[in-house]
Amino acid sequence: MSDQGRTIVLVSGGMDSCVTAAMMHKTGDELLFLHVNYGQRTQQREEKAFHNLAEHYGIPDNKRMVCSIAHLAAIGGSSLTDPSIPVSNADLHSEAPPTSYVPFRNAHLLSIAVSWAETCRVQRIAIGAVHEDSSGYPDCRPEYYAAFNELIRVGTAGAGISIVTPVIHMSKEEIILLGAKLNAPLHLTWSCYQNEEIACGVCDSCALRLRGFERAGIPDPLDYAVRPSYNRI
Amino acid sequence: MSDQGRTIVLVSGGMDSCVTAAMMHKTGDELLFLHVNYGQRTQQREEKAFHNLAEHYGIPDNKRMVCSIAHLAAIGGSSLTDPSIPVSNADLHSEAPPTSYVPFRNAHLLSIAVSWAETCRVQRIAIGAVHEDSSGYPDCRPEYYAAFNELIRVGTAGAGISIVTPVIHMSKEEIILLGAKLNAPLHLTWSCYQNEEIACGVCDSCALRLRGFERAGIPDPLDYAVRPSYNRI
Repeated sequence: MSDQGRTIVLVSGGMDSCVTAAMMHKTGDELLFLHVNYGQRTQQREEKAFHNLAEHYGIPDNKRMVCSIAHLAAIGGSSLTDPSIPVSNADLHSEAPPTSYVPFRNAHLLSIAVSWAETCRVQRIAIGAVHEDSSGYPDCRPEYYAAFNELIRVGTAGAGISIVTPVIHMSKEEIILLGAKLNAPLHLTWSCYQNEEIACGVCDSCALRLRGFERAGIPDPLDYAVRPSYNRI
Repeated sequence: MSDQGRTIVLVSGGMDSCVTAAMMHKTGDELLFLHVNYGQRTQQREEKAFHNLAEHYGIPDNKRMVCSIAHLAAIGGSSLTDPSIPVSNADLHSEAPPTSYVPFRNAHLLSIAVSWAETCRVQRIAIGAVHEDSSGYPDCRPEYYAAFNELIRVGTAGAGISIVTPVIHMSKEEIILLGAKLNAPLHLTWSCYQNEEIACGVCDSCALRLRGFERAGIPDPLDYAVRPSYNRI
């Protein structure tokens, strides 16, 4: 990856997108950062993390896009966007999508990225989707991205755009170790699905994060309301 | 098509979606109507047409969804959403997408429909995409919908949702004749990309509509600022 092109990076503000951005930064590509609010509980905190990461990588304002798709909250169906559905505590053994699953969410994010890419003639879109060590969301599977790339091929006017998923086969532990190696600013990221002030430590996203740091043997720089050990789960 | 299920119909307010709704109505399915504003010039007029069509088919308020995705206008790249790009007059011979092409637009609309369908357990989504007699948009091709259905298959949690495109192979003339046969309320539709008060008669969309009515031998019930003959083009 040394084509000196331009890449749109989907930056949620979490660790996976942070390390994805670090990898794309290392290619020498000019980066554009995209963040999407979809009515999720912690959207203000995530947007703050997005801007902190953008500052870190020197992304100017005109290369940052923040969009809001409030209709995902109106549609509901997820504990992330519907206040009447509680965020469930982590069950790292379950294969079913947790309550935080937002139906077909990533298609909305990727569609925005592709529209922006086609308009600005950017050919690469990077997303920090994780399959192996994920929460079991169907739109994080490798075959989902293969299908989306086919959709782009037939659904754009020959723009040559494709999505890359550089961390999709990594565990959280590997992502953290790679982030440390690339000096990715993991201290600026936010993962908790429940809180915006201090991470809860018990939601799916906190559990995956804490277990990843434990396994990597690196201290998590964030503070937590409670900090269970997930390493044996 | 007599499965007595439920169908979400994407209703822009134009003729193709009106006749698609008429076809779905005839199946006996319960219908849900979805309309998306994306910052297009004529969005107020199109939303009015949407509600008029919903009234006609007796769709209650809680089965209508109107979403706004303002970021497509912010991204720009189309004469429909960027006031600095003029709406070009029709060139029915050209195979290139006209200035009204909104990059990757239909993926945004379909993603909303799929999120809604998955949340409400609806299994069919109908869209009035037209390929044969269209403006040359890449996201109106049959292979685009095949790719989207594959994306749904791998990107949802086993919800069994699929998109149908019942008018995709029809000419505008055939759509109008079918609409007349099904008593579709074509007088309530709006097609013009340029104006909201009186249809311009010269944009791509007016040209395709007027040529269709001429060829069908049926008078177009709308008024036009100018009404050229397109039948020989």
